[in-house]
Amino acid sequence: MCVIGAGLIGGSLMRAADKAGRAVWGTSASEETAAEARAVGFDVDTDTDAALHRAAEADALVVLAVPLPALDGVLRRVAAVAPACRLTDAVSVKVAVADAVARLAPRARFVGGHPMAGTAESGWGAGNGELFADAAWVVAADDGIDLDVWADVAELAWACGSRVVPAASDEHDLAVARVSHLPHLLAAVLAAVGAAGDDDLPLALAASSFADGTRVAGTRPELVLAMCEGNRDALLAAVDDALGRLGAMRGALASTGGLAATVRAGYAGRLRWAAARDPQPVRVRRGTAPAELREIGRRGDAVVGWA
Amino acid sequence: MCVIGAGLIGGSLMRAADKAGRAVWGTSASEETAAEARAVGFDVDTDTDAALHRAAEADALVVLAVPLPALDGVLRRVAAVAPACRLTDAVSVKVAVADAVARLAPRARFVGGHPMAGTAESGWGAGNGELFADAAWVVAADDGIDLDVWADVAELAWACGSRVVPAASDEHDLAVARVSHLPHLLAAVLAAVGAAGDDDLPLALAASSFADGTRVAGTRPELVLAMCEGNRDALLAAVDDALGRLGAMRGALASTGGLAATVRAGYAGRLRWAAARDPQPVRVRRGTAPAELREIGRRGDAVVGWA
Repeated sequence: MCVIGAGLIGGSLMRAADKAGRAVWGTSASEETAAEARAVGFDVDTDTDAALHRAAEADALVVLAVPLPALDGVLRRVAAVAPACRLTDAVSVKVAVADAVARLAPRARFVGGHPMAGTAESGWGAGNGELFADAAWVVAADDGIDLDVWADVAELAWACGSRVVPAASDEHDLAVARVSHLPHLLAAVLAAVGAAGDDDLPLALAASSFADGTRVAGTRPELVLAMCEGNRDALLAAVDDALGRLGAMRGALASTGGLAATVRAGYAGRLRWAAARDPQPVRVRRGTAPAELREIGRRGDAVVGWA
Repeated sequence: MCVIGAGLIGGSLMRAADKAGRAVWGTSASEETAAEARAVGFDVDTDTDAALHRAAEADALVVLAVPLPALDGVLRRVAAVAPACRLTDAVSVKVAVADAVARLAPRARFVGGHPMAGTAESGWGAGNGELFADAAWVVAADDGIDLDVWADVAELAWACGSRVVPAASDEHDLAVARVSHLPHLLAAVLAAVGAAGDDDLPLALAASSFADGTRVAGTRPELVLAMCEGNRDALLAAVDDALGRLGAMRGALASTGGLAATVRAGYAGRLRWAAARDPQPVRVRRGTAPAELREIGRRGDAVVGWA
């Protein structure tokens, strides 16, 4: 297995796959990072072409674990050196990656992936082989994918301790816009409203509702921007939904003074989330069709192995 | 000291004041609650007139610890039985209470208060004498108040382990709208957006940003409604601020795709909140003028005793 990128995600993947007994090699754009990885016994250098060539020879899975802005450059090397390789990725948006692959490496047998794990840290040193344990790992189940590669990616996820959530690429992007990107933007708005004005009285009176509601506003801005701006179309839909609900609430508060509809819908949503937290573990036959896989994800369940 | 209301707040006040060595008596609208309190040695019955009469005789401080909807009825008894008593309250909004006092018990020597403590529970049984320890207790510092009663309320707050944050009633209401009521409404909107749609995929992919951002949406709706609807005017201002920021962000995302202004303002707000968490302890002379007291609260500091 070949991992392109040896930062938090790529570095953790190499450790987890190695621990699971897989042959792993990889590359980093940084000689310093590659040296760090080699120092603890990993087969990592900066020669992307050589690593991809080796993957093509072995028909091994290639995992792209680079930031979205670096993706196009890597895909051009894939097209040149390993054009028909088994390919997945670990980027947090799926439509933009699938589009780039279709444009730049159209012969690759691509199945997108998104291991839903991370920390506020970054770099090889921040990684660890347990990062993906008990996490959801979305494996794209779009029509027309190579089901053999889907199985490769699912088995990698299981080897890393994750459960597989199958989803269409566009469904994934809309979902993370609602439950992962929008929370960062609402936290930012709340923190800005609390700190607006010249005096510190509001902040002095802020208690746990403000502390919790603004926690992720403390994330480094570059990380939030990279995550949210890459998912622009889906995020616009989520923001419009939030704006519509907030506007309707504003109207009700101004006219009748009533907030019951807003508060009760929020309470019901939170209860539904709490109920959805224990996904049913599902086993499927190898080669199950994408449409059937997607239904599992829509039910909130997860694939944990072959039937 | 006379406490009207023996629920979570009134019951905790009686326990804390008793522990601090004060003579405390009180009333509850419920015979069952009064019996619960008597069973553990507190002087509580259901005869509000008698309790207020005793307060008038002793020139004792009367604390109103009843829900906002019950306030008018109690104030009519104050006007009838103890019209010029020393009076404070523990309701979470201050302008509405001050207006009701001015209308219904205009001779009372009233200084509003808001101990910023609570739990999701309610009733005598949920109370405890440590509820106010290390909490902020807003004591209204409006022009024209009786400074002797302000001192009474401040000393009660200190006896209960709280620090006193002086604020004008309208400043208090605007501040809690921003940092306490708005967080509940944004959490409700976020929870509703996450749970919108027919399938559970978004909720299955929700991680800690969603969990934290929606935590207070799990509060019982009646509690949230009572809190927020009583602060309508101030809350409208806070909601409009949030809507303006969210709308501007939506425009930037749609036009340039950029979210930097929103995300950086939120990051700065969160850092300012973190820096404001350690209020400077201030001591003032008894009889310090309201305008001077208010400046302490505006700086985010707190009064912890007499100079």
